[in-house]
Amino acid sequence: MDLLRSLPDTTLLTELDALEPFRHDESHLVGHVPLGVVRPRSAAALRELVRLAKAEGFGLVPRGAGTGKAGGCVPTARTVVVDFSAWPGDLNVSSQDLALTAPASALLRDVKAAAIAEGLFYPPDPNSWESCALGGTLATNAGGPNACKYGMTRHWVLSVDALLEDGGIHTFGISSVKSNAGPALGQLLIGSEGIFGLIVGATLRLTPLPREYATLLLPVARWEDLLDLPGRLCGAGYLPSAFEFFDPAVLAELRAHGPEEARRLPGEALAILEFDERGCTSEPFLEGLLDLLGPVADGLEIASDERQRKGIWAVRRMTSAFLKERHPKKVSEDIVVPRSRLREFFAGLDRLGFPSVSYGHLGDGNLHVNLLAAGETDPALLERQLMDLFRLATSLGGTLSGEHGIGLAKRDAFLALSDPAHIQTLRALKRAMDPAGIFNPGKVI
Amino acid sequence: MDLLRSLPDTTLLTELDALEPFRHDESHLVGHVPLGVVRPRSAAALRELVRLAKAEGFGLVPRGAGTGKAGGCVPTARTVVVDFSAWPGDLNVSSQDLALTAPASALLRDVKAAAIAEGLFYPPDPNSWESCALGGTLATNAGGPNACKYGMTRHWVLSVDALLEDGGIHTFGISSVKSNAGPALGQLLIGSEGIFGLIVGATLRLTPLPREYATLLLPVARWEDLLDLPGRLCGAGYLPSAFEFFDPAVLAELRAHGPEEARRLPGEALAILEFDERGCTSEPFLEGLLDLLGPVADGLEIASDERQRKGIWAVRRMTSAFLKERHPKKVSEDIVVPRSRLREFFAGLDRLGFPSVSYGHLGDGNLHVNLLAAGETDPALLERQLMDLFRLATSLGGTLSGEHGIGLAKRDAFLALSDPAHIQTLRALKRAMDPAGIFNPGKVI
Repeated sequence: MDLLRSLPDTTLLTELDALEPFRHDESHLVGHVPLGVVRPRSAAALRELVRLAKAEGFGLVPRGAGTGKAGGCVPTARTVVVDFSAWPGDLNVSSQDLALTAPASALLRDVKAAAIAEGLFYPPDPNSWESCALGGTLATNAGGPNACKYGMTRHWVLSVDALLEDGGIHTFGISSVKSNAGPALGQLLIGSEGIFGLIVGATLRLTPLPREYATLLLPVARWEDLLDLPGRLCGAGYLPSAFEFFDPAVLAELRAHGPEEARRLPGEALAILEFDERGCTSEPFLEGLLDLLGPVADGLEIASDERQRKGIWAVRRMTSAFLKERHPKKVSEDIVVPRSRLREFFAGLDRLGFPSVSYGHLGDGNLHVNLLAAGETDPALLERQLMDLFRLATSLGGTLSGEHGIGLAKRDAFLALSDPAHIQTLRALKRAMDPAGIFNPGKVI
Repeated sequence: MDLLRSLPDTTLLTELDALEPFRHDESHLVGHVPLGVVRPRSAAALRELVRLAKAEGFGLVPRGAGTGKAGGCVPTARTVVVDFSAWPGDLNVSSQDLALTAPASALLRDVKAAAIAEGLFYPPDPNSWESCALGGTLATNAGGPNACKYGMTRHWVLSVDALLEDGGIHTFGISSVKSNAGPALGQLLIGSEGIFGLIVGATLRLTPLPREYATLLLPVARWEDLLDLPGRLCGAGYLPSAFEFFDPAVLAELRAHGPEEARRLPGEALAILEFDERGCTSEPFLEGLLDLLGPVADGLEIASDERQRKGIWAVRRMTSAFLKERHPKKVSEDIVVPRSRLREFFAGLDRLGFPSVSYGHLGDGNLHVNLLAAGETDPALLERQLMDLFRLATSLGGTLSGEHGIGLAKRDAFLALSDPAHIQTLRALKRAMDPAGIFNPGKVI
């Protein structure tokens, strides 16, 4: 694509070898070879890129650090990958405004560290937080363990700067949580996976950094006892900042083949709970919590220092990679079931009859259901199993994507399972915001 | 409008006397006499209403309890008011899901009370919370004092049920905070003041009810000392759940002519701070806070029981009505200035040279600037003064509406002060979602 050479302030990759890595994210998908990969460094570069894309009829596929799990940055046919890793801009924290301004290229770990340096906290914490780029977390409305208390990325964005189809960069929002000047275009862009426009930067909302953590490792003798616990705790005034779980099968694998810390774990299933409010390490708080847990708490361990806390979280953080190593062809799905329906969901999952193991975010009903035998399953059968899983979740008032998004991986299922009026509305919005169809074509809808 | 008689499950008002109250909300605006007021009670009624509106070319103006302050429910020409006060549906709390389902017709006070009955909390608290309807708070993304800690209405909505232009009611979202199945149409509808579709119900997100409150009445000797305080507290880990203020002029009026409680107040300006986190009434918490406040805290009073707390809040709650009674033709504007720019803002306001008094939500920079002499000011001059005020706020990174919305009252200013591409995008979305132009015509854009 020789035309791309005319872009100002842009690094261009066109060699086949160089393009190859850009066909992937962290899903199982392999995309088309893109026409090129561009790394723009100025508004002028983006303006010209939009002009070229319209004139030449190619699509623009945004890419942050490529850590997505739904193929949102995987190229479709006749597209150019817009790699934002060189997009300029400083990280700026205003403690007075409880706000942080950052370019899409900033790594989430640097965003979180910049807040911490000022005694402040940016809660979103996807598992990839050490390697993912802010832009990707905005495009996918990333979640993570902290979402059960703090909500999703969209709850922590004050304003976004986005490239729209006119070729200009526009800002939606201000640096205060109070802002009601017209409909929330920024909220429409967050989580839209680049189909309406490309987010190049944002101002994020911060909150005071938690001063203490109570981190609990909770092995339970009966798996079922875990399923009522999130609702029971919240109703009694105990809102965990994280409530993770491992079902009996995952725990058994961890115990048999996992790291040293995991081998000693008793019980049928396992939870990790964390509280981060002021006073959560005090005796009255913990006593109240133990009362609530009752007999479920036999075997409970509470981290008494930061080293122990990190040890507990290490078990959670390595689970995805550990399962992937043991079952390279497994398929991991990201679904949601309202907390009140968890028992029904797991009973229904048993009835579906295909082997699966689950772990993830019990505190908000966001479950990662893994089909370990996916590699040996006939593809058509696997497809049916996944649809059965999604139907089960939606029939219980849940959804087929909790935090990873739709991208390319779940597009067909999303189209099949959604209210047709919903899809029709999304397509009308797409035509309105991107009449030439240049932004991340073939994704989501 | 005889055709309206054919609507099923609908109460119809057509007498001039009966229509008159529906020309108003709590702004100064007086709208057109509507073609009729309908109170639908079923999906079939709404479906037929949409069909009639398209066929006959009239608009639909949604109305909750009519407590809006920007004219969002004030009728424009050739419109029917859709009064949702009879819209059916129960209030249902699921403590397991930390979720509450309610129809648009529910009063916010009943929503908040239903949560409290289960030990749970729905934070949004506009000043009209005892009389406003949930639907209106969703359409306007209502704020209130608690927003400085908890955010706006949109941060507390899990899903919305909305009437779209196809005549059907569609649900966007699920009852968990984790949900990433496509772009957030629900977030687009919240705060869009009915121009894209009409919200008929919602599932709201709850959080554990605060167990204790530290409520502080803080008279300050020097007004300027107040302006750095929100940022200083937050940076030190003290996030107030409310931080209200009264500038010297408002305090002087309250002291001279206000209620008994206000007459004894010392100082040049006044703040009300509230904390609601666990342990906030403990000695270590309050001592840390007093250290931070330093000499600013001379004269501080802390409510030691619920009666005193209510007494402090009564002063804040009555301020709007008190000023309105003393200055019936005053104009109150709802603007935002980022906390870090408050000093610059008040210096700029002095320079503008027209008399104004301010109170409101210092904790998130949402200021209610009142032009007391508006009634005696030449209308063209008043218009210029308001535009100067809005320009000052936006030039400091703020906005012309913090919590009331745009509606009819600020439409011209919004159009004049916005990035043209922003308005163009909103208009394209309007055409996409409401091609016949039936939903709240003439509002916002």
